[in-house]
Amino acid sequence: MDERIREHARVLVEWSARIEAGDDVVVVVGMDAHDLAVAVAEQLGERGANPTFTYQSGELTRAYLTNHDGEFEESGHERALYENADAVLSLRGGRNTSATADVPSETRQRAARADQAVRDARLATDWVATIHPNRSLAQQAGMSLEEYQEFAYDAILRDWEDLAGRMAKVKEVLDEGSEVRLVTRDTDLTMSIEGRTAVNSAASVAYDSHNLPSGEVFTAPEATEGEVLFDVPMTLQGKPVRDVRLTFEDGEVVDYSAAQNESVLTEILETDDGARRLGELGIGMNRGIDRFTDNILFDEKMGDTVHLALGRSYDSNFPEGREDEANESAVHVDMLTDVSEDSRIEVDGEVVQRDGAFWFEE
Amino acid sequence: MDERIREHARVLVEWSARIEAGDDVVVVVGMDAHDLAVAVAEQLGERGANPTFTYQSGELTRAYLTNHDGEFEESGHERALYENADAVLSLRGGRNTSATADVPSETRQRAARADQAVRDARLATDWVATIHPNRSLAQQAGMSLEEYQEFAYDAILRDWEDLAGRMAKVKEVLDEGSEVRLVTRDTDLTMSIEGRTAVNSAASVAYDSHNLPSGEVFTAPEATEGEVLFDVPMTLQGKPVRDVRLTFEDGEVVDYSAAQNESVLTEILETDDGARRLGELGIGMNRGIDRFTDNILFDEKMGDTVHLALGRSYDSNFPEGREDEANESAVHVDMLTDVSEDSRIEVDGEVVQRDGAFWFEE
Repeated sequence: MDERIREHARVLVEWSARIEAGDDVVVVVGMDAHDLAVAVAEQLGERGANPTFTYQSGELTRAYLTNHDGEFEESGHERALYENADAVLSLRGGRNTSATADVPSETRQRAARADQAVRDARLATDWVATIHPNRSLAQQAGMSLEEYQEFAYDAILRDWEDLAGRMAKVKEVLDEGSEVRLVTRDTDLTMSIEGRTAVNSAASVAYDSHNLPSGEVFTAPEATEGEVLFDVPMTLQGKPVRDVRLTFEDGEVVDYSAAQNESVLTEILETDDGARRLGELGIGMNRGIDRFTDNILFDEKMGDTVHLALGRSYDSNFPEGREDEANESAVHVDMLTDVSEDSRIEVDGEVVQRDGAFWFEE
Repeated sequence: MDERIREHARVLVEWSARIEAGDDVVVVVGMDAHDLAVAVAEQLGERGANPTFTYQSGELTRAYLTNHDGEFEESGHERALYENADAVLSLRGGRNTSATADVPSETRQRAARADQAVRDARLATDWVATIHPNRSLAQQAGMSLEEYQEFAYDAILRDWEDLAGRMAKVKEVLDEGSEVRLVTRDTDLTMSIEGRTAVNSAASVAYDSHNLPSGEVFTAPEATEGEVLFDVPMTLQGKPVRDVRLTFEDGEVVDYSAAQNESVLTEILETDDGARRLGELGIGMNRGIDRFTDNILFDEKMGDTVHLALGRSYDSNFPEGREDEANESAVHVDMLTDVSEDSRIEVDGEVVQRDGAFWFEE
């Protein structure tokens, strides 16, 4: 076995999920994530945890959904599985990222609604999602398998303790700050972050962070004013969308455009009221990620990028008891801006990042 | 998709497991049983059942067990999954039937003991085990993949209703009979079956039958007297064992021999007191199985064969409230005799089968 797979499993079990002896762990194994599952099984055996392996494949999902009449029910046994689990490790990696492309979106939505209690039970555990770098994901990223493995392990096998320390400085500034201003050649946006709690997303449940890789600091902005250009290419609802421009007044999008597939943007903005407000401001700090791969798990963590999400915000950005201030929406759509050149981020008028470099890196 | 896979899934879901709308179903997917899992997902969608897919791989089992210190615990979440399930469909089929060959037997036994409650919960559901005919199983059977697929589907895609009707006649004779005599060139054995209930194993939970394929009628004999030769080659505990001869007096083995690996037989007989008594007399009636493949799921169902098992008997062979008469043992080892020539089975002195042909087939 490639030693990087073992190292990945060790980081996932030890740093990310903090698995201890006796923990009941669900390991969700993607159809083409078998090798990582073997390495995770080794780690769980060594630690004396109790694993149950479930199987995830878009092909099974599609076969089930497209043959169902649409009157979906809650799955009692799956809910019981998660309600009795301490942690859930999702090892993503199928053989075709388009395996469910022909499932009607209404069918998906109906199934997702019936699945709400199962999802809530899963999210109540110490869950962590990661990917096994395989051929299908390499293809999505436009890379050879070897190249993609190097890319992915560079992002995953970091010195997380060190990165957590650097991100803590940014979190501190955001926690204490009231207003953020983001300026690039085509962007000048101000947002209030008064009373919000930034998350130091250090790829560990101990930091309220559930992705491996991670490496971003994010908070929940409001009262957004100004203009922003998202210049990083992305795929939304299966379609390429380029150069989205948004104009905000009093926290809401009042004007927008896109250079490609603008109708997708229209559809997102018209989902509900919350879809026209921002749910997240995230600052990428993982310098192991050196290029865009059209996979949000990696793209939004990349150093020298800032992302904003239209739609719902995370409860973790609100002090306890104030989660009802969170922006509500059925969508959460991340969009990225490159801040490596001609850019700055100010907090209460102080420049905290210029051209991608933080004040403590200068 | 090969239409035989779809047909296999239909027989499994409809005839064998009797799945209905709203049933919570666990589908255990072997590492190389994906295609059958897709077909089963279609069937479950069509019927409005709620599936959860778990992943079974000897490689994961080995990785976990060999890295564990041996102090295994019960898996609370897995138990909850099965306790809340109506049915369990096991789709067996890995990539290497020897994947756990180097796991020490003591480790397996310790893990199995910790797993008792999970196993009990699973067996309390409407469970059915089947195999997906893949390359690894073809190799075990010494066949090409295409040849093995034909072999397996011939055994699985039967007219089960018709076979159940023919087996019912044999069950009736055994239920009413008191003594069975089995005679071949090298065998002359008498057994009491007084007060026992034969099972018409028609590959359906509706018949208390949990294997697909099935096709045997079995009961629990006692007070065995005489001699028997098992002339069908078999693998026991990973070793080839040939021509086992047993001599019974008053229900117990008093003398034995084997032409190859006799020590394996010794080890089995010395397990406990129950291991020296018979737990099962089974008559194979699936004429879709035309050769031995050293896979007991198929071999013991083959027409023109009789099998006897040393060790524990099944509760289903005893009238309700009399399950305590069942033979108790940690082992249940099936051994086969070819009855296609020079043989007869008598029930209370009446010949019910001669040279493999039942009285109603003559």
